[in-house]
Amino acid sequence: MTVTSNISEEAKPEHLTLHHLGGGEDGGGAEVSYPEQEPLCIFGTGDLGRSLGLRLLQTGFKVVYGSRRPQSCGPLPDGAQVMRHEAAAKAARLIFICVHREHYTFMETLTPYLEGKVLVDLSNNLKKGIYPEANAVYLQRLVPGATVVKGLNTLSAWALQNALLSGKQVYLCGNSTEAKQAIAEVATKMGLTVVDKGSLSAARELEDFPLQLFPEWRLPLKIALGLTAFFYFYLLIRDVIYAYVEQGKDISYRIMVSLANKVFPIVSLVMLSLCYLPGVIAAVFQLYRGTKYRRFPNWLDRWMLCRKQMGLVALGFAFLHAIYTFIIPIRYAVRHKLISRVVDEMKNNKTTPFDFNDTEAWGTDSFYVLGILGFFLYVLLGLTSLPSVGGSLSWREFSFIQSKLGHVTLFICTAHGYIYGWNKFLRPSTYKWYTPPGYMLCLVVPSVVLLLKMLLLLPCVDRTLTRIRQGWERNQSSRVETNL
Amino acid sequence: MTVTSNISEEAKPEHLTLHHLGGGEDGGGAEVSYPEQEPLCIFGTGDLGRSLGLRLLQTGFKVVYGSRRPQSCGPLPDGAQVMRHEAAAKAARLIFICVHREHYTFMETLTPYLEGKVLVDLSNNLKKGIYPEANAVYLQRLVPGATVVKGLNTLSAWALQNALLSGKQVYLCGNSTEAKQAIAEVATKMGLTVVDKGSLSAARELEDFPLQLFPEWRLPLKIALGLTAFFYFYLLIRDVIYAYVEQGKDISYRIMVSLANKVFPIVSLVMLSLCYLPGVIAAVFQLYRGTKYRRFPNWLDRWMLCRKQMGLVALGFAFLHAIYTFIIPIRYAVRHKLISRVVDEMKNNKTTPFDFNDTEAWGTDSFYVLGILGFFLYVLLGLTSLPSVGGSLSWREFSFIQSKLGHVTLFICTAHGYIYGWNKFLRPSTYKWYTPPGYMLCLVVPSVVLLLKMLLLLPCVDRTLTRIRQGWERNQSSRVETNL
Amino acid sequence: MTVTSNISEEAKPEHLTLHHLGGGEDGGGAEVSYPEQEPLCIFGTGDLGRSLGLRLLQTGFKVVYGSRRPQSCGPLPDGAQVMRHEAAAKAARLIFICVHREHYTFMETLTPYLEGKVLVDLSNNLKKGIYPEANAVYLQRLVPGATVVKGLNTLSAWALQNALLSGKQVYLCGNSTEAKQAIAEVATKMGLTVVDKGSLSAARELEDFPLQLFPEWRLPLKIALGLTAFFYFYLLIRDVIYAYVEQGKDISYRIMVSLANKVFPIVSLVMLSLCYLPGVIAAVFQLYRGTKYRRFPNWLDRWMLCRKQMGLVALGFAFLHAIYTFIIPIRYAVRHKLISRVVDEMKNNKTTPFDFNDTEAWGTDSFYVLGILGFFLYVLLGLTSLPSVGGSLSWREFSFIQSKLGHVTLFICTAHGYIYGWNKFLRPSTYKWYTPPGYMLCLVVPSVVLLLKMLLLLPCVDRTLTRIRQGWERNQSSRVETNL
Repeated sequence: MTVTSNISEEAKPEHLTLHHLGGGEDGGGAEVSYPEQEPLCIFGTGDLGRSLGLRLLQTGFKVVYGSRRPQSCGPLPDGAQVMRHEAAAKAARLIFICVHREHYTFMETLTPYLEGKVLVDLSNNLKKGIYPEANAVYLQRLVPGATVVKGLNTLSAWALQNALLSGKQVYLCGNSTEAKQAIAEVATKMGLTVVDKGSLSAARELEDFPLQLFPEWRLPLKIALGLTAFFYFYLLIRDVIYAYVEQGKDISYRIMVSLANKVFPIVSLVMLSLCYLPGVIAAVFQLYRGTKYRRFPNWLDRWMLCRKQMGLVALGFAFLHAIYTFIIPIRYAVRHKLISRVVDEMKNNKTTPFDFNDTEAWGTDSFYVLGILGFFLYVLLGLTSLPSVGGSLSWREFSFIQSKLGHVTLFICTAHGYIYGWNKFLRPSTYKWYTPPGYMLCLVVPSVVLLLKMLLLLPCVDRTLTRIRQGWERNQSSRVETNL
Repeated sequence: MTVTSNISEEAKPEHLTLHHLGGGEDGGGAEVSYPEQEPLCIFGTGDLGRSLGLRLLQTGFKVVYGSRRPQSCGPLPDGAQVMRHEAAAKAARLIFICVHREHYTFMETLTPYLEGKVLVDLSNNLKKGIYPEANAVYLQRLVPGATVVKGLNTLSAWALQNALLSGKQVYLCGNSTEAKQAIAEVATKMGLTVVDKGSLSAARELEDFPLQLFPEWRLPLKIALGLTAFFYFYLLIRDVIYAYVEQGKDISYRIMVSLANKVFPIVSLVMLSLCYLPGVIAAVFQLYRGTKYRRFPNWLDRWMLCRKQMGLVALGFAFLHAIYTFIIPIRYAVRHKLISRVVDEMKNNKTTPFDFNDTEAWGTDSFYVLGILGFFLYVLLGLTSLPSVGGSLSWREFSFIQSKLGHVTLFICTAHGYIYGWNKFLRPSTYKWYTPPGYMLCLVVPSVVLLLKMLLLLPCVDRTLTRIRQGWERNQSSRVETNL
Repeated sequence: MTVTSNISEEAKPEHLTLHHLGGGEDGGGAEVSYPEQEPLCIFGTGDLGRSLGLRLLQTGFKVVYGSRRPQSCGPLPDGAQVMRHEAAAKAARLIFICVHREHYTFMETLTPYLEGKVLVDLSNNLKKGIYPEANAVYLQRLVPGATVVKGLNTLSAWALQNALLSGKQVYLCGNSTEAKQAIAEVATKMGLTVVDKGSLSAARELEDFPLQLFPEWRLPLKIALGLTAFFYFYLLIRDVIYAYVEQGKDISYRIMVSLANKVFPIVSLVMLSLCYLPGVIAAVFQLYRGTKYRRFPNWLDRWMLCRKQMGLVALGFAFLHAIYTFIIPIRYAVRHKLISRVVDEMKNNKTTPFDFNDTEAWGTDSFYVLGILGFFLYVLLGLTSLPSVGGSLSWREFSFIQSKLGHVTLFICTAHGYIYGWNKFLRPSTYKWYTPPGYMLCLVVPSVVLLLKMLLLLPCVDRTLTRIRQGWERNQSSRVETNL
């Protein structure tokens, strides 16, 4: 039962079912289903107002526009009426405010007409914090007799026009539950998924939503940038500057590709392990506390919420690493080295290095194979994090992929790192200026994560953890795991 | 309030709430919610009719089939009734016509029963333009007493059976708003998003929808094919034929890989810039006219509507370019050249070319790095154009990616092109037969786009443009930007 | 008309429209739309219960929790009431059971309160087959006076909390159609797509859903593993063991990369052809039977249902093949061979092999180009099988991509295979130990598929097949193709 049908029943209680079968008297019998609807009102005939009206009309609502100059407000969707604000406000009970906050003052003059109406504030600001109070709060102050609901402000005119709303989440907040539900009904009919954000005091938060730029990507990107900068600098010193100082060679051209191709896999591996570290830490917390019902510290919560983004950033670096590797053989420096090596070889007539080294062949091939398999699984993980793919998986499948396959990926990529340095760990020349090479540094975190994970998989630990996650509590043994 | 519940109320006004709590007398109390529903009728028991009935039943409607031979019409979904056309038409008010147009004539005999009903024409044709009038118009002519609505004809039996309807757009058209709304209600309940296409005269357009084959991809693909053909031919002359005529060498084997790997990046870059050119042109139009309220010329509108497809075609070419590049070193001709160069070198005992050329190393490495980064951003742009990824972005995020990141990608790829020819621009040998090489030609459009974009980003221009896009108009200064 | 509004009307028949326009007396006029709702009840305050309640509240329902200890059941969503089971059961008619099956016994004591209620069993088990009867059947046995509906058990607490429900399919089963429809209404309001699975006897099937782990991927993965194992072993014998036995050379290092890079394309091609073989077989069946109305044999049905997964597994192998190919030139063994070949060359001062072989250049380049184009189309096919991409295609577009483009891909990849062996088919040295090489074996299936497909495309065959698929039947000529 929609807002409007309900209203119409009240307005004309003697006509509970207005339209008769066969429809003889209305000439065509098409009015089979709809009682006379109360229209929805839209204040504002800009892009958003027009697109919203179009969508409401197509969803089956009646729409009436309120405008200062009903005669000259430009093209409006077919089927919509347009009238002066006063008349429009009278005709409807839900009014969508599609006007810039700067012009809200005109509504003060309409207060008698807005008494008891629900005003939906769809406005956004161009920047955060340019006004002391949220637009919706300001509107409520201007028109105290109306009930203001903030919401739907994340919708764009473009998405409305193109009917791209299906399943899109929209947020509502307001002090009246009934008003929010009335709007939620309308929004649900438009195919939107409504999330209630509480009272009108959340309006500022809602108004900041459309201004957000990848909030959940910030932390992962910052970490990635920090790691990249650190390792670039570290390797620059160890490789380029070391070679210049100690051997007097200028190999600064390596900055472009060789160094980057060392930094990228390092950052990728560290990011991937940082993506699985919080899960392990959370498990340790739960084991230590003996319950899952106590909140994790805030830093851990925030960390866990950006694991997906962390993994995708790691995948991005792995992708770059892969392409950097593929173009190695066509680089000038590599070709030059190959040619000059052969020429050198011939001139000095030595043959020793040309003996086929079977261990070397096995070693490098294993190194590549692990890298390829790791990358393959990486891409698989990335694909399942696509909304449409992840959404089609069952919970067990999703956790199988993201947990089991994820840890296998981490293991393979870590092994890829270990094999890279397999015969260099004990060589003193590896430790230039007494510093360990980058790949050794980057193996620390993944190794710790894998070690902890293996400990957690020990049968005795795993059993306790499973029970805790099913609701069992160590200290409060009376509370059995009853609920799903 | 659905079509059906409304109807039932009318039929039995004394039973507004039919089912009692506790449900003692209906043995089980399960009939908590539904008043007796009027069924929906389906004419036709083919694949589409059966799948539609199944879906309607699962959505909670009653379904009755109309058939010529109710006894022998094959397996129908559980819970559906089947009867003769006359009886079925009597029982329902909405009738879905799932019959081939060729057999519509039988409905003429049913006209008394179809009086005042809503007929939903779901039929499609095998080809465009085989009939002088749209199927729905023909149907309306056959049964003038009924209200014909054309629509839902984009649904396939397969999608209906597998419940793949969520959020899918369907189109309706018809002369009765009420009839359309009744169908829209049913469709919305099935999870579909309904778009009203106006009166029944749009029926032909709707009937052509399922026959369309990538209409929005045609222009981009045509442009891509044209560019590919032109540049292939151009480079064939400059490379292969030139070498044959002037130097007598047959290097026609290069057609397969080397030429293609020159043409693909050229086409990709031109397509990418053509993807951003209309936005720049539109801005110039708006600046010149001083308003955003005048329509763009048709060619610009069409161009802007296929930008996404243009970008994806460009990405396809970039992808091919990347793979063609990766396999360079394993090509026979490249290996042969490498080996013969070394051998040649040794025999003639020259050492000069083996001196490491630092500029060359920096140059080629920068070239590759720009290419890789450009490709990386390209892929990122492509990923965000996936419906499920793009749909989860806020408007600001989407425009950040598609506009800012897009122009950065264009800039990087253009720089990639410039560096390719960095030391060849002034060399006379570059201009074989007085023609510029392909990569120079292809740099023209992107350079123009980037230059114009930079001009538009100048503070004074940018400010005016922002105001225009917020609704300000230069000539009609009284009209302030009130509306969202 | 929802469950709840209907009920409230019954409860207070004198208040058909509870809230008046203007809303003077309820202070604010916000209660425009909702009559007093009957709440939904949830038994169980665990993760699932709480998340379900949150989502129901946000969708606009009232929620009341039933708990053994209403005072100490932890944090519940704002707006939800919590009371003892008895009181909660009294207040609602739909009761969601979010309790572990092990604790169902407490409901026996509530039987008087549960009389006539609808109980939705959301429970899952940890493993298949640990109980003799399904949870829902057990529940029905415990509380015979209530109507048990099994369903919604595929929802996870996580998806509920994050409103990731849009368009998600959920399953219901139960003996009462009315009870199922009541639940379906609630689920549809939450944005879910409901699929009715029939009577309560399907409960076990529904309870096994969340325990399924990629059921439709099993067959393709098994086939892929079988093929991989067979070809690995086969090539191991022909390459490594043959070289060891006949020539005394140890080339076991090839196992890692070279062998894998032969096995992957073979498996990929066979899988791709197995993906198109069932379609061809189905066409032959239809032609032979002269009707499309007879069911295919079970094995063919199962095969056809996992074609998508088969194709994606084939794409995975093709992806691995591509990367394995890209890293060829940086492998130690390849570099070693290149260098030693040059050195060898120089020492022996032969020049013959350095003559440029034009046929070889054309041959290998064609080989690579076909491989690249095949891979490109492969990736395109994979992209369109993404749910969000495939869902945005019309039926004709989807079938164009998956059928036409798919067969073209198969053709190109098969040609890639033929060119690989173009000059080796007649060479006796190819048939080591009288066995054909792997790529010859793998060309059998795709060649058969392509041949059959070409036969089916012959005009006379194609015409008959098209008619059959439109409903024509050879033997029952009276039955014309009337229905869509």
